[in-house]
Amino acid sequence: MHRLNFVYKREVEQLKLKIKRLDWSTGNAIVGILNTKDAGKLNTHRGDRILVKKKKNCIIATVDESLSYIKEGEIGLNYEAVSALKGKNKSEVEVEASTAPDAVNYIREKLNGERLSKKKIQAIIEGIVDNSLSTIEITYFVASSYVNGLSLDETAFLTEAMYQTGDILRFNAKKVVDKHCIGGVAGNRTTPIIVAIAAAAGLTIPKSSSRSITSPAGTADVLEVLCNVEISKNDILRIVNQTKGCMIWGGTVSLAPADDEIIRIEHPMNIDSLEQMVASVLAKKKSVSGNIVLIDIPIGRYAKIKNRKEGERLKRLFNSISKRIGLETEVVFTKALGPIGRGIGPALEARDVLRIFEGHPEAPRDLREKGLRLAGRLLELAKKAKKGEGYKEAKKLMQDGRANRKFWEILKAQGAKVSNSSDILIGKFRTRFRAEKDGKIRLIRNDLIAQAAKIAGAPKDKKAGIYLKKLRMEKVRKNQVVFELYAESRKKLQKAIKYIKQNNPYIIK
Amino acid sequence: MHRLNFVYKREVEQLKLKIKRLDWSTGNAIVGILNTKDAGKLNTHRGDRILVKKKKNCIIATVDESLSYIKEGEIGLNYEAVSALKGKNKSEVEVEASTAPDAVNYIREKLNGERLSKKKIQAIIEGIVDNSLSTIEITYFVASSYVNGLSLDETAFLTEAMYQTGDILRFNAKKVVDKHCIGGVAGNRTTPIIVAIAAAAGLTIPKSSSRSITSPAGTADVLEVLCNVEISKNDILRIVNQTKGCMIWGGTVSLAPADDEIIRIEHPMNIDSLEQMVASVLAKKKSVSGNIVLIDIPIGRYAKIKNRKEGERLKRLFNSISKRIGLETEVVFTKALGPIGRGIGPALEARDVLRIFEGHPEAPRDLREKGLRLAGRLLELAKKAKKGEGYKEAKKLMQDGRANRKFWEILKAQGAKVSNSSDILIGKFRTRFRAEKDGKIRLIRNDLIAQAAKIAGAPKDKKAGIYLKKLRMEKVRKNQVVFELYAESRKKLQKAIKYIKQNNPYIIK
Repeated sequence: MHRLNFVYKREVEQLKLKIKRLDWSTGNAIVGILNTKDAGKLNTHRGDRILVKKKKNCIIATVDESLSYIKEGEIGLNYEAVSALKGKNKSEVEVEASTAPDAVNYIREKLNGERLSKKKIQAIIEGIVDNSLSTIEITYFVASSYVNGLSLDETAFLTEAMYQTGDILRFNAKKVVDKHCIGGVAGNRTTPIIVAIAAAAGLTIPKSSSRSITSPAGTADVLEVLCNVEISKNDILRIVNQTKGCMIWGGTVSLAPADDEIIRIEHPMNIDSLEQMVASVLAKKKSVSGNIVLIDIPIGRYAKIKNRKEGERLKRLFNSISKRIGLETEVVFTKALGPIGRGIGPALEARDVLRIFEGHPEAPRDLREKGLRLAGRLLELAKKAKKGEGYKEAKKLMQDGRANRKFWEILKAQGAKVSNSSDILIGKFRTRFRAEKDGKIRLIRNDLIAQAAKIAGAPKDKKAGIYLKKLRMEKVRKNQVVFELYAESRKKLQKAIKYIKQNNPYIIK
Repeated sequence: MHRLNFVYKREVEQLKLKIKRLDWSTGNAIVGILNTKDAGKLNTHRGDRILVKKKKNCIIATVDESLSYIKEGEIGLNYEAVSALKGKNKSEVEVEASTAPDAVNYIREKLNGERLSKKKIQAIIEGIVDNSLSTIEITYFVASSYVNGLSLDETAFLTEAMYQTGDILRFNAKKVVDKHCIGGVAGNRTTPIIVAIAAAAGLTIPKSSSRSITSPAGTADVLEVLCNVEISKNDILRIVNQTKGCMIWGGTVSLAPADDEIIRIEHPMNIDSLEQMVASVLAKKKSVSGNIVLIDIPIGRYAKIKNRKEGERLKRLFNSISKRIGLETEVVFTKALGPIGRGIGPALEARDVLRIFEGHPEAPRDLREKGLRLAGRLLELAKKAKKGEGYKEAKKLMQDGRANRKFWEILKAQGAKVSNSSDILIGKFRTRFRAEKDGKIRLIRNDLIAQAAKIAGAPKDKKAGIYLKKLRMEKVRKNQVVFELYAESRKKLQKAIKYIKQNNPYIIK
């Protein structure tokens, strides 16, 4: 009956309309704006689907209605839709009502608590990528996956479908290594250290990172202080084949695009299930042909994962899904007792990284140590060091300058913007915070430091942020400077000072 | 911390932009289209919220981005948004990033399986009505209510919030009666019969009905053949105060507007939980100040409610929620063995109704009987008839012509388009279907009849549909005409014939 209805609609209700090309973005969903009268003729309503055809090219769009901006006989389509049709302004197109794709039925099954097969999850992810599913329908999928949960099978199917529906970068290497930190710790910029050491050891490590969404800096924001991070697919292939590594922003290339759309829909509710997180991380790794992956899960009271038990659950999930999709994944737990490194904010974090390679006296030892430990573990996994000797090997690569040379080789391939740590400019408005008594620093509140850096302007103001002069467990005397605050405007500096006065991030006892 | 962040954003990131007025509708959500550069300056992304202010007027909009159609310094806003700001094209407005309303947190709680308080449900429904919630967020609410279910308390809070956030029509009457059928049965046009009898008995019955969404005719589609159904709030008040009744399309007035938005979001998934259905029906009744309500639940294998057990569940829910919101509701179960009445499709159903009032020989007895029984029950509930004597009283009002006079009084007040049943034109393309053998009609498949009428063009083609010459349990001889098919085009007639040949709706044994 369903099918018959479709045939009926296809053959009977069809209009010839002229394109009115509109230039704005409507998320990923393609919207076709019809005059209300034409919408009536097609027997469609706002939110229904139409098929728009121009010769052999065909797109599915969601109907929106206009009373007069779009005239009778016109269809408003945005730039991407017009390109996909190989049309132009005023081209004639054929428009007809269309039924929902099968994927809508599968989403309904998920809403009703059913488990979805590989085929069904693939259909949903394809529908996200080819725009045949509307934002409302994708939201139902995300919401029902969140509430009803995803089984191990479903999570694996989802991961596979997500990378298979996007570009896959392939390199001239059998072993492609990668690392990922699930985040939630201020500073903690281990990526450049690990990439440099791994590549220096001869491993291929095409690292893509994200920009900040809610934190004072994402790895891509930090790297952008040092070099270009928006790099085309061809340039990535060239740079990695030449230097073995790269450190780019993942948003430029279309890797696992369904994942980006799902993240866009999760964003307003700030929800993120463990299953969705694991699928998202591992799909991105498969998109760059990764086969050996190190996952860093920081555990701490003020981090994303609060305790060992939660961490173990996430670890099991990473391991199970990795096994199913053919990834060798090692999960390590790290302690998140406070920020890692001294700088918080793009420029300040970039300076920390350069100082570590330079062996600068102020280089943060905690960040260096964490970077070396993770890099060492990766060397062991990829058989570049014997078990138990990875750290030693990583340290050697750092100390003898090979990691530093590799790091600059990659930076230069990506268009380096600086040549050493003293080139990095920090916000011109600054203030110092001093210890209110003698004692030992027992805790630096990760969450409060991050928030203060954001109020000061990070990540948008790259030179804004916080610089920790004293680290955890160090002794301080009254009136000694414990941290510095930087901003690019006096107003933001004052806001941040006000916030810090109400929310003291240093606990001295 | 949340609050401080808000203060920070309010005071620092603000742009003065000029309105570019756009004329199209984007559902209920207000969208503000920013040039990508301005979106960056405000540190907002697609889907984030902005506050748009012009003097004392202020709206919340969801951000969309444009590369060049909206220039730097402009903000694209649609007609409704510009009106709400009391602005015009090129007016200057102040735009700033805004945080999500508390309602978003309550929706997240519902996603996480929590029960929501009255205050929280009210905040969500207010957010739907004042457009401060985006389509994605409302979808999360609908999806999580569907998957996690709504408790009795939550359903009652939802019902109350829905009618309290819309217009409430008040009439000069202590008792306002109403009826509702949950649908799923072809034909079954009892509303005009019940309204006429109840009003003739002196009861106030301001009946609003819906148009078809998936069926071959909604009550409003049928009534539109006879009179005007799109009537303003003031005219409804005047007509009901004058005649005691009306029969209008509910879409013209803003009764329980949140309900309309929720239905819009349910539509693509074709989901409808019992709780949502009960809240929707009862909120609309409270919106017209109804206090005595009769609910008709047809039960049958091919109807919406398949068996008595499901029916009982729905009945309990109607009764519980009615009690909590101060409605006297009576639920009756009716048998749905097949279509009710002879005509299926707007004009054919309208003709059936007029013929019943006229006492025409072809008037469908089953529809007349059902109408009289339901009207009788309503007379008893409203104390216009003793218990057990309602049917007799309803029949008297029908037979002595008072119901007929009242019916025409209301039709005329609504601008009658016809004066008797022979004025009603039926589709000019027609064909007859004959019995393939002697026997008794055991079943007329409700679902197949409805689908065939839709393929023939109903409800858009008002004169299209099916007319049942022979009803259930009647004896037929081979080659006797059992039903007729009508359409407004030869093409649609042939499609419907093809469908009927593959899906025979008459079972003769």
